[in-house]
Amino acid sequence: MPENFYSDAERAAIYRAIYERRDMRHFLSKPIASDVLTRLLDAAHHAPSVGFMQPWRFIRISSPNLRVAIHDLVEQERVSTAEALNEREDEFMKLKVEGIMECPVILIAALCGGREQYIFGRRTMPDMDFASLSCAIQNMWLAARAEGLGLGWVSMFDPNALKVLLNMPEDSQPIAILCMGHVDKFYDKPMLEEQHWEYRKDLNTLLYENTWNTPCP
Amino acid sequence: MPENFYSDAERAAIYRAIYERRDMRHFLSKPIASDVLTRLLDAAHHAPSVGFMQPWRFIRISSPNLRVAIHDLVEQERVSTAEALNEREDEFMKLKVEGIMECPVILIAALCGGREQYIFGRRTMPDMDFASLSCAIQNMWLAARAEGLGLGWVSMFDPNALKVLLNMPEDSQPIAILCMGHVDKFYDKPMLEEQHWEYRKDLNTLLYENTWNTPCP
Repeated sequence: MPENFYSDAERAAIYRAIYERRDMRHFLSKPIASDVLTRLLDAAHHAPSVGFMQPWRFIRISSPNLRVAIHDLVEQERVSTAEALNEREDEFMKLKVEGIMECPVILIAALCGGREQYIFGRRTMPDMDFASLSCAIQNMWLAARAEGLGLGWVSMFDPNALKVLLNMPEDSQPIAILCMGHVDKFYDKPMLEEQHWEYRKDLNTLLYENTWNTPCP
Repeated sequence: MPENFYSDAERAAIYRAIYERRDMRHFLSKPIASDVLTRLLDAAHHAPSVGFMQPWRFIRISSPNLRVAIHDLVEQERVSTAEALNEREDEFMKLKVEGIMECPVILIAALCGGREQYIFGRRTMPDMDFASLSCAIQNMWLAARAEGLGLGWVSMFDPNALKVLLNMPEDSQPIAILCMGHVDKFYDKPMLEEQHWEYRKDLNTLLYENTWNTPCP
């Protein structure tokens, strides 16, 4: 059997996690075992990174006061977002957009400082480190699903205010508040699809050949 | 058996793909079966996206002339990167940074245009769509590994020049040249680690609690 080979069962497991992963907003209070959390963080750390830069840093929030302060930040941005959405404001305000006060584990995912010294793969597109961290979070997300744990990525916050809260250096960058925990049930479909906020596009409308010949919706 | 539950074998398969995924630069010319390619694209399409925006577009490059033109763009940027690296220029020029002329499938991953209308989760951090596309690529990467296929993400190019080549609208954004194909062998470690360009950091140095109290390297 060639070493490249995955069995049908292995392949199916990977697709299962890809299709069953959900951006969760509802959590149980049951704690996450520390060895499981370490496995998830190590899965993140084995993501690809531009020039093998490994720009990711994770800040675990164990302080109850800090949790409340982070929740307040998100609540503030939720209201600002609702106002910016104009005619969809009321519809938006009915959605549950975070589970910060319920989830047992909160991690802030951030880009480290001193990134300008990394040029490999970033000379024309310095944001590639942000792509690397996103891949790391996706690794963690899929591994969490396989561990029976939910994860929710909250991006509704003022990054500068969060930096101040966490004493982050000027040239670092928080990109996600990750809520993690056991769940009663994973959503059958993405919550925003279940709630009729958006629908899944037809894959064929997203694929072009050689030239950008189909208009974007 | 609760529906959240994955068997030990399923969980192991997911970690296997996470740990064995590599950023590949060496490919065999053997074609990729079209049903496999469709599965990979559908895996990408089932990534999380901010506000369920699905900002990803994929352009398949089947034109040999376009392939050469894309290779030329990358070669140009490779030389510029080498110069910018100063004392590591010679070391860098020995690395294989792409497999564009060898791989059977090239996809350009891009962000669609018209993104300013999407405010959900992007009011303070508009780049969240870029995170979504990165997660989509990571899905494809892991699924490709499970299919026995290699994938390499090349970010060494001038995005504006690539936009012109592919007739992309002004407000769209190419973020990756993805080289895909069968491989003789997956690297045992990340190629840049095997080639002593960088080393894997100790996970514990990347984790903080409540405050950013450890200096970035």
